[in-house]
Amino acid sequence: MTDFAKGSATAFSKGHGTGNDFVILADPDNAAPLTNWQIADLCDRRSGIGGDGLLRVVRSAKHPEAVELSSEAEWFMDYYNADGSVAEMCGNGVRVFARYLLEHDLAEPGDIPLATRAGLRTVSCVGDEFRVDMGPARFEGASEAIVDGRRYAGTRVSMGNPHLVCRVDDPYTLDLHKVPAVDAQLFPTGVNVEFITGPANHITMRVHERGVGETRSCGTGAVAAAAVALGGVGTCTVDVPGGTLTVTVSTDTTTLTGPAVIVAEGHTNLV
Amino acid sequence: MTDFAKGSATAFSKGHGTGNDFVILADPDNAAPLTNWQIADLCDRRSGIGGDGLLRVVRSAKHPEAVELSSEAEWFMDYYNADGSVAEMCGNGVRVFARYLLEHDLAEPGDIPLATRAGLRTVSCVGDEFRVDMGPARFEGASEAIVDGRRYAGTRVSMGNPHLVCRVDDPYTLDLHKVPAVDAQLFPTGVNVEFITGPANHITMRVHERGVGETRSCGTGAVAAAAVALGGVGTCTVDVPGGTLTVTVSTDTTTLTGPAVIVAEGHTNLV
Repeated sequence: MTDFAKGSATAFSKGHGTGNDFVILADPDNAAPLTNWQIADLCDRRSGIGGDGLLRVVRSAKHPEAVELSSEAEWFMDYYNADGSVAEMCGNGVRVFARYLLEHDLAEPGDIPLATRAGLRTVSCVGDEFRVDMGPARFEGASEAIVDGRRYAGTRVSMGNPHLVCRVDDPYTLDLHKVPAVDAQLFPTGVNVEFITGPANHITMRVHERGVGETRSCGTGAVAAAAVALGGVGTCTVDVPGGTLTVTVSTDTTTLTGPAVIVAEGHTNLV
Repeated sequence: MTDFAKGSATAFSKGHGTGNDFVILADPDNAAPLTNWQIADLCDRRSGIGGDGLLRVVRSAKHPEAVELSSEAEWFMDYYNADGSVAEMCGNGVRVFARYLLEHDLAEPGDIPLATRAGLRTVSCVGDEFRVDMGPARFEGASEAIVDGRRYAGTRVSMGNPHLVCRVDDPYTLDLHKVPAVDAQLFPTGVNVEFITGPANHITMRVHERGVGETRSCGTGAVAAAAVALGGVGTCTVDVPGGTLTVTVSTDTTTLTGPAVIVAEGHTNLV
């Protein structure tokens, strides 16, 4: 029999940002790195805790991938996909990470500099939401996606990762159970496909993430979609299945603002 | 900001039996019944804790649906589907329920009588596994399921809920993303369809549960499938995607034996 009460179990939190959810484990001293199998076990939605990814909370000074940034950011977002593979950054995950730090008194409200594998990112509290700099949205030309035999013209956008933003009459009429067909030469490693409708300052979006399927929210996808909708600088509200995000596009960068909550905390005997 | 540490949050556990997972909330005195919305929020896999269902742990004497059984069973398995609808019994859930009672010193190892909406059930510890009486498997004639245009002959079995057990060459070659087509007149409220292969005493099974889709395990489905494979009394090992179950069929009833584990315990602010 396990004994959660005796303290042999590992502390965890679970949180989400617009329905993109994460298991959070704090290991400030990086004393117990996880194998990809352990991460997959924790993120398993039936035999584990369940999450789209896992956030380890590690002091930058204690992690070889973040020590260079340790004078600027106390904490490193050591982020993994649900299958245990290493991931760079996540616009929803970084807000959940900031929320965790605040609730555990590991950071002060205001601007919170964070080390990530994509470099230094500053998350700012905006009321009860969080804003993060997402870097510039780079337009890379036209292409198209095919869903159920119908072709949808789209715009290629790089947010570090590849996106294809397609304007449609009503995203909610599309069957996104299958991977949208795209030009395999342009997207050799796949692409996240966003389907949007609405005016430039307020769009509705559904997203199919490569390697995952349809998700309730994709931070970089929301920014790519808003950049296409705006066509220049401005602010755009993005309704995703999991909630609402706000994107601002300026001349040299973009920001993503949205909610992040911790819904449970406890102990697990999975690791 | 929430404050899990100050004790305003609700205690929960999460556990599973062969990949069929449950959120568990103890409310011995039935002091705080949950609305179906609260249950759905807790079972939501992205914005909640996540589970196929929810088990409330309530004293039989304190629950109007179980008070009649309170002299025989101290605890009532107050069981709900993930959407918040009331459910009767679950062969995997009842083992997780028993495991919870043991780990929390609410029951003694051995035979544990439990009140359920399907009546009194006794769960027995068998080593590190749990065995539960599932009642008789009733054969109800032949029918068929159609998957991807191919017809598979099957046997209708009632375990209280309806099943259609189809023998196939290899269950893992089937595409179970879509609901298998069945005779709508025979199954007006849908049917759980099991696809099995292997000898009578050791089968491999995949299952499509009505209203849910393919799952990693279905307790009543494993019993129905084993009853068809055996064709009479005997014992059958059933490999499901989430693990292994053992079914015995005797002249007047069946039993299901399998693992059950608690993987996490903590507090949530969702209710």
